[in-house]
Amino acid sequence: MSAGTLIGVGVGPGAPDLMTLRSVARLKAADVIAIPRRSPWDESLAWRIAKGNVGEVPGQERLFLTFPMTKDPEKLKPAWAAALEQVAPRLAAGKTVAFVSEGDPFVYSTFIYLMDQVLEKLPATRVEIVPAVSSITAVPAAAGIPLADGQERIAVLPATYGVEDLARVLREFDTVLLMKVSSVMPKVVDALEREGLLDRAVYVSKATTGEERIVRDLRSIKNDRCDYFSMVVVARRDRSGILAGAVAEAS
Amino acid sequence: MSAGTLIGVGVGPGAPDLMTLRSVARLKAADVIAIPRRSPWDESLAWRIAKGNVGEVPGQERLFLTFPMTKDPEKLKPAWAAALEQVAPRLAAGKTVAFVSEGDPFVYSTFIYLMDQVLEKLPATRVEIVPAVSSITAVPAAAGIPLADGQERIAVLPATYGVEDLARVLREFDTVLLMKVSSVMPKVVDALEREGLLDRAVYVSKATTGEERIVRDLRSIKNDRCDYFSMVVVARRDRSGILAGAVAEAS
Repeated sequence: MSAGTLIGVGVGPGAPDLMTLRSVARLKAADVIAIPRRSPWDESLAWRIAKGNVGEVPGQERLFLTFPMTKDPEKLKPAWAAALEQVAPRLAAGKTVAFVSEGDPFVYSTFIYLMDQVLEKLPATRVEIVPAVSSITAVPAAAGIPLADGQERIAVLPATYGVEDLARVLREFDTVLLMKVSSVMPKVVDALEREGLLDRAVYVSKATTGEERIVRDLRSIKNDRCDYFSMVVVARRDRSGILAGAVAEAS
Repeated sequence: MSAGTLIGVGVGPGAPDLMTLRSVARLKAADVIAIPRRSPWDESLAWRIAKGNVGEVPGQERLFLTFPMTKDPEKLKPAWAAALEQVAPRLAAGKTVAFVSEGDPFVYSTFIYLMDQVLEKLPATRVEIVPAVSSITAVPAAAGIPLADGQERIAVLPATYGVEDLARVLREFDTVLLMKVSSVMPKVVDALEREGLLDRAVYVSKATTGEERIVRDLRSIKNDRCDYFSMVVVARRDRSGILAGAVAEAS
């Protein structure tokens, strides 16, 4: 039994042409493309990004894996067991399995869990990570807000896990990215207002896709049910500028 | 006088095949490729990444701009003035100028300053940002360390601007990326040791290039003069795992 190769292939934030040359090459060359989806009747977001660039590859298997959108362990555990049952025999047979991951495979992704479980079951598996354009940089690019320069510090928080200490984080970091703000927008807007940073904040959902939405007046959407793939970028920009620090590294 | 277009094109962390399809397309289509370098006798790192993918483009101008590696305003100001003197007339003539930026154009890059200055001088200029694979995700991928999942929080700090409060940041964030650790390695190692996190830290320099170096025992390089393009990733990984939170979003 030869050891297979598991590749976490980031396909970027949404626009197919933000895939890297390497991600396209790895997907074309894989024996199996593993494709996560939320339910059997849902289209995979990651595969929607990748499929046009990959095209038809003779003999290649496309393996759909269903990971339900829930925090309930009783639903998660059997889904993960089923996914592993699909992936493990293919790796054990020496195949190369490339898992398509929206964004970057190491940033809040299902791939991290799959990798951990595969390595537990088949420790000899080779693992390769193909890094990608993450929403961490795609969202500031879409909003036209530099992420950081000079002495600036960046914080990235999944907002769904508590924004109680957001005021303090906003004081200590120059740029704050709040991921998955969907259900906590009212609290986010309140915290920004208290810190006097509401006009430094921009809401972005589905960055780089055809459905990209950018909102600069957060009050106007405070009580909306926001999209799951949404972020808020807050940038002070009070330590930036050409003379703020060691700026002249050749980009 | 028609308004030109300034494009900040991220070319990724070092490996040419980590460029995106869009970055290659924008560079091939530009009237002018603006190429930052540290001195007239230095090869541009960003251009070394891009040039093989761009190839020869008939009629395209390659404009080298020199940004010295210094914090001294007396040296920086004339260099910036000279760069702007080169770029502005081309934009004013309606040309598309694509500036190659190592990593992502909005992450600690020279492009941010160029954009600010261009918009001050020529406010009608259209600006486009082509986001890229940043070292923020390329370094964790190289080290095999997931950046964040579930409830985890990420902090990114330019270490050269002070690691005095590093201990506190290490307590409050799950993953900490220290950029540009070159000259402050002894302080970084001390802080990690005090927090009991030395075995959770990995040093990576020149990630994804042929000269990539990964060191897992930071004590062994504590007193070395480290490379400028080096980072330390510290990951607690004590809030990760399949059942730590809302993990089952389809990647």
